[in-house]
Amino acid sequence: MADYPDSVRIREVGPRDGFQNEPEVIPTAEKVRLIGLLAEAGFTRMEVASFVRADVIPQLADGPEVLAALERRDGLAYSVLIPNERGLDNALEVRDRFDEISVFLSASETHNRKNVNRSIAESLDGLERVVARAVDAGIRCEGVIATSFGCPYEGEVPQSRVFEIAERLRDFGCAEIGFGDTTGMANPRQVDGFYAEATERLAADGGVELTAHFHNTRGQGLANALAALGRGIASFESSFGELGGCPVPPGSTGNISTEDLVSMLEEMGVATGIDLPKLLAASGAVQETLGRPLGAHLLKAGPVDWHNG
Amino acid sequence: MADYPDSVRIREVGPRDGFQNEPEVIPTAEKVRLIGLLAEAGFTRMEVASFVRADVIPQLADGPEVLAALERRDGLAYSVLIPNERGLDNALEVRDRFDEISVFLSASETHNRKNVNRSIAESLDGLERVVARAVDAGIRCEGVIATSFGCPYEGEVPQSRVFEIAERLRDFGCAEIGFGDTTGMANPRQVDGFYAEATERLAADGGVELTAHFHNTRGQGLANALAALGRGIASFESSFGELGGCPVPPGSTGNISTEDLVSMLEEMGVATGIDLPKLLAASGAVQETLGRPLGAHLLKAGPVDWHNG
Repeated sequence: MADYPDSVRIREVGPRDGFQNEPEVIPTAEKVRLIGLLAEAGFTRMEVASFVRADVIPQLADGPEVLAALERRDGLAYSVLIPNERGLDNALEVRDRFDEISVFLSASETHNRKNVNRSIAESLDGLERVVARAVDAGIRCEGVIATSFGCPYEGEVPQSRVFEIAERLRDFGCAEIGFGDTTGMANPRQVDGFYAEATERLAADGGVELTAHFHNTRGQGLANALAALGRGIASFESSFGELGGCPVPPGSTGNISTEDLVSMLEEMGVATGIDLPKLLAASGAVQETLGRPLGAHLLKAGPVDWHNG
Repeated sequence: MADYPDSVRIREVGPRDGFQNEPEVIPTAEKVRLIGLLAEAGFTRMEVASFVRADVIPQLADGPEVLAALERRDGLAYSVLIPNERGLDNALEVRDRFDEISVFLSASETHNRKNVNRSIAESLDGLERVVARAVDAGIRCEGVIATSFGCPYEGEVPQSRVFEIAERLRDFGCAEIGFGDTTGMANPRQVDGFYAEATERLAADGGVELTAHFHNTRGQGLANALAALGRGIASFESSFGELGGCPVPPGSTGNISTEDLVSMLEEMGVATGIDLPKLLAASGAVQETLGRPLGAHLLKAGPVDWHNG
């Protein structure tokens, strides 16, 4: 069996990736309360806001207010999503309220066009300036590549193109590259080969951190995470409750659930640093806020308890 | 990466394991129609009835009628669940309507007691006679060991005990041993080690066929299937729609979904012999019959289509 990492880092992206995809806008105070519950569970990384235009994503229009209200904690890095230079300008006004930014584009021309109305080349031009300015301001940058494992419009996305984009982002100054399986098209054999090459091309000799961002659209999210873990990947993104998705195409749903991921990893002896009962308290709270059953399996089943007997 | 099998066999257990766990009794004609749709999808193995007492499991009281009405097809083996000798007596009255039987017990004393009101030793005594008589009648036998990866009452189940039971079942004449993760307690690292030893102890030199029966209780079912596949396991049990569960403890739910399993395997290049669109037609039909959204992800997401572009 693969030689798994002893520990991993999990970035909880539900407060951005999840809340963004809710039909109703969650009140600011409620967001702050839920993020506080997540912080109690021990996360070291959390994506908590977006500086995408408020008219495009009204669900996250209160980003600055959320950031202003969040308690700063030792060992917890807040990150924010930055679409372009204007977004960065706005974020820099509250520079002391966050630690990292994530920038993004798609590896598929069609998906990128539908998502941000730009070509990949245009996106890269813009992100080069964003990342350079962020790095100048002392901000750590993650470059996220959507549709890294397949595109719902174009089908196969050549792996070579994904890595060429990743190398550009690294050259811009990104310290971390996140590969998104935006609509759940990846399979474990593909993931294995993908991260074998990604590690060789991007992570050798003090290269960038490689992050896995899977969706559970087809139920294979944790199997894909297992495959990435088997290649030594030790950074994951997931959403509490299995919230989240992607605005295009409509109906795309479901980051992998943080609870289910933490349960699998901890049961395997891979340390996450997350207190699962406290995480489930946060997930239970957001489920109550949203008023519908969420997809995370642990919300129904609870943790494995080896001491029931 | 692991050296996966080129192809696997999947036993569809929804018509038994799934229908048994539905609060409402599905009409016989409807069962027959749904099993027919599954047969159209290309299964070579299907568990379609139970000879458990009708007052214990009224949902499956019509087993003989279902068997009588099913079309016999070349290459499709029907199996039935047999709890004890009386069950076998009843099954033998319709001997020409099925090909295989499954017998079962738990590797946990407490779970076995709660499930069948016997000790493990008493269960083994009874199954020895059942299997001997079935083999005499030319019937292939699968021995299923529930709670093979952990027990909700006792916690850890010693792997050595599971294999001792498996060896007994093999010695009785079982050609196949199914290991059930009855309440979804397994994790991939455990599964890897488990099947490494199982293969060595039971499958070497023309030994028994080893079958993996995972539940998706905690969302880890496909990751566990992947781990078993990585050890060369090429026989799986699953339920269309993600139906199924276990009567004890109450609320235990969810075999792995056949659709999601087939999707993962086929995307990995592991042949299943199943026509996924036809399987989804069967799943859509049972979802309509039951009148509630089922857990299988592919029912919402549809298959990966690499040719959308």
